[in-house]
Amino acid sequence: MIDLKNFFRPKSIAVIGVSRNPNKVGHVLLKNIIDAKYSGEIYAVNNKADKVLGYKAYKSVLEINKKIDLAIISIPAEFVLQIVKECNKKKIKDLLIVTAGFSEVGNKKAEEELRNFILKNNMRLCGVNCLGILDTHNNFDSLFLPRDRLTRPSPGGISFVCQSGAIGSAILDLATFQGHRFSKFISYGNATTLDESDFIEYLGEDNSTKVICLYLEGVKDGKKFIRVMKKVSSKKPIIAIKGGITEEGHEATLSHTGSLAGNAQVYFGIFKQVGIIHAETLGEMLTYASMFEKSIKPKGNKVQVITNGGGYGILSTDAISSSKNLIMSRLSKKTVSVLRKKLSSLINPRNPLDLLGDADTQKYNNALEACINDKNIDIILLIILYQTPLITPGIVNVVTKFNKLKKKPIITVSTGGKFTEELKKELEKHSIVTTTFPEEAVKGINALVEYYLKK
Amino acid sequence: MIDLKNFFRPKSIAVIGVSRNPNKVGHVLLKNIIDAKYSGEIYAVNNKADKVLGYKAYKSVLEINKKIDLAIISIPAEFVLQIVKECNKKKIKDLLIVTAGFSEVGNKKAEEELRNFILKNNMRLCGVNCLGILDTHNNFDSLFLPRDRLTRPSPGGISFVCQSGAIGSAILDLATFQGHRFSKFISYGNATTLDESDFIEYLGEDNSTKVICLYLEGVKDGKKFIRVMKKVSSKKPIIAIKGGITEEGHEATLSHTGSLAGNAQVYFGIFKQVGIIHAETLGEMLTYASMFEKSIKPKGNKVQVITNGGGYGILSTDAISSSKNLIMSRLSKKTVSVLRKKLSSLINPRNPLDLLGDADTQKYNNALEACINDKNIDIILLIILYQTPLITPGIVNVVTKFNKLKKKPIITVSTGGKFTEELKKELEKHSIVTTTFPEEAVKGINALVEYYLKK
Repeated sequence: MIDLKNFFRPKSIAVIGVSRNPNKVGHVLLKNIIDAKYSGEIYAVNNKADKVLGYKAYKSVLEINKKIDLAIISIPAEFVLQIVKECNKKKIKDLLIVTAGFSEVGNKKAEEELRNFILKNNMRLCGVNCLGILDTHNNFDSLFLPRDRLTRPSPGGISFVCQSGAIGSAILDLATFQGHRFSKFISYGNATTLDESDFIEYLGEDNSTKVICLYLEGVKDGKKFIRVMKKVSSKKPIIAIKGGITEEGHEATLSHTGSLAGNAQVYFGIFKQVGIIHAETLGEMLTYASMFEKSIKPKGNKVQVITNGGGYGILSTDAISSSKNLIMSRLSKKTVSVLRKKLSSLINPRNPLDLLGDADTQKYNNALEACINDKNIDIILLIILYQTPLITPGIVNVVTKFNKLKKKPIITVSTGGKFTEELKKELEKHSIVTTTFPEEAVKGINALVEYYLKK
Repeated sequence: MIDLKNFFRPKSIAVIGVSRNPNKVGHVLLKNIIDAKYSGEIYAVNNKADKVLGYKAYKSVLEINKKIDLAIISIPAEFVLQIVKECNKKKIKDLLIVTAGFSEVGNKKAEEELRNFILKNNMRLCGVNCLGILDTHNNFDSLFLPRDRLTRPSPGGISFVCQSGAIGSAILDLATFQGHRFSKFISYGNATTLDESDFIEYLGEDNSTKVICLYLEGVKDGKKFIRVMKKVSSKKPIIAIKGGITEEGHEATLSHTGSLAGNAQVYFGIFKQVGIIHAETLGEMLTYASMFEKSIKPKGNKVQVITNGGGYGILSTDAISSSKNLIMSRLSKKTVSVLRKKLSSLINPRNPLDLLGDADTQKYNNALEACINDKNIDIILLIILYQTPLITPGIVNVVTKFNKLKKKPIITVSTGGKFTEELKKELEKHSIVTTTFPEEAVKGINALVEYYLKK
């Protein structure tokens, strides 16, 4: 395994190509590093200025007489190799190069030269043509997009390795908005030397990473990929989405990250073989990631639906019954008798358990209490529709209380507007999985069971 | 066709069972009618009070000496038939009964008696066990859920006929939050007499309804359903989702709206035969509805992708190439030469057209201008990722300008957080279709082409 710690918690960095123009990539990059409260030493390099963003600007890394762990390079493609040579002279072995304009625009020769130099000199490179790296637990933010546009997530357990910078930034921004929490985000672009396998192997050993997401256009070293993914997926879930699965999509990857995309069916076969969870859409990837980050391991595949909307109970039942891995649970006799005693006589103690439109927070409490202790139930799909007035914000405490017992995964579904979104964010803060639609939740639960119980 | 105008724009209504307790259904119902600024005459009926919500409370409808178009009934099930008899005596022929406790809880006899009385006396009933009716264009809001929990949409072209009140209210609340606009919402519950076919036949002739959504658990009169759906779907799109498609889901419908759900494959076959667009999930239904409400009819199935994120271009290409009805367009020579002239030399004039991470609003303008005039292109899939700083809010005006030409459907995709959501709402205000993920957008475009070109 390659030691990549300098890419996540470097003690000192040189930012090479820091313009004084606040719209330029290098400027935004350094500003983000400062704003994220990076705790190491920062050296700015700009051969046309004396000072940038309050930092002395060095003409070259060779002028800096301190040890540098990581060089972050944002200069035009034609100057990159020269600067990399200076870094090597300065004994900086770890490089993050965001610069584009290499094989993805046909400039294969320049990338090949760069690659050869890097390998020959035992250097390590994340990039080229990438967005940067974010490590929330170490306050290290080298992404070059502004923090008001691409909002950064709170520290958590999802790590995302992404070949496309745009997909990475869009998903990160959305996920943050929805309250999901991340450990590391790595945009590795053209994978000139370090590739998805290197980063995922590192994340496999990273204690703050609970689940790994991967957006992939192509794999250059198939054997390494298979070896690493097998190893890591036995320790923690890897969720992958593959770009370029059709012939025309594949063609498009060539001018994007210069990847050899390869046959889609071959990829899906390999995903299955190495234990990767295959997400078909970006939305699915995010749902699965959130579910694996927050949910405990289920003991079995029997799902109990609790709802205050009959139609939602039906759609959930349809989704569970049609799923590959799940079945509807059958309430134990004891639970049936407890529910009969504790709930209104209009409520039928079955699965789905419909608490009806006048369900209040107390009824949810009683239903959850009975179901959490029922050995016939492995997973609870909890639908809470906030349109009815008797559901109070106190429901958050009720769900949190039962979730904290860590007896069974509790997956919530709520569809609605502002009030619903606020309460979903509260639930997320308490590490409870929230989803919007029953079909989405069931797909996620199905993946959970597939990963933990079917491999 | 049954004339249902009294259910949407009654000139006078009696609300029967208006409690003075603000938590009771009848009270909320009347309050909502008032708050929505209903313009007709309101008569409140409560045999235990003199006044409710500022209105004189009549002991019975028989005490009111004015003509009543619609009686809205919210009293316990055991008193319903008696009150319906009084309505008949008072010559009120149209009834909306929200009361539950009939066949859905096994009380089939009471519902049968009610049904027989209604039919024998040529009355019309929406309900029982329903949430009510909303007509945004006529300020008529008889839904019994509070307006701060279930937010009401602005007037628009989507009408939603929904057997489940909870699904209806949750989707309405979410759709409103996302900026979608509705014409009518009808929760018809047990379909004791009036059913989905009656309402959809009426909506077929309703000028303010552009697209119809239907959530359905079961159909009682199959012949009528087939006749009506064929007729209406030839005039405007009907998007349906079926609850109870699995054996266990079907069982659950029995205790919900007392529906005979029937074999799922039979339903799907009928949907296809009568021209109904089948949505597999609630999310899909909402995407399709928004797309049909705002988009013009495409002239063909050739889709051009414009993006500022390479990965999004690839995933969109994959989705289009894998879809049933769509193909990727090939830019005309003229467009290629215009794009070469007007865009940076780094941008490859192809499909997907990747404007790259430094795309600004002007580049989008140039790309759209060239593509909107290219006869090789039928539909534009426009991906705008707002994480990059050069995209300004002015992009809304650019997209609006080209959308207003009504030359081609323009479907936008944007994934992100607060800033993204704000700009999506701005686009929605200008009647531009917004989606979150490329796969979702392509599914919607596929449905658009299926409906307009493949039937």
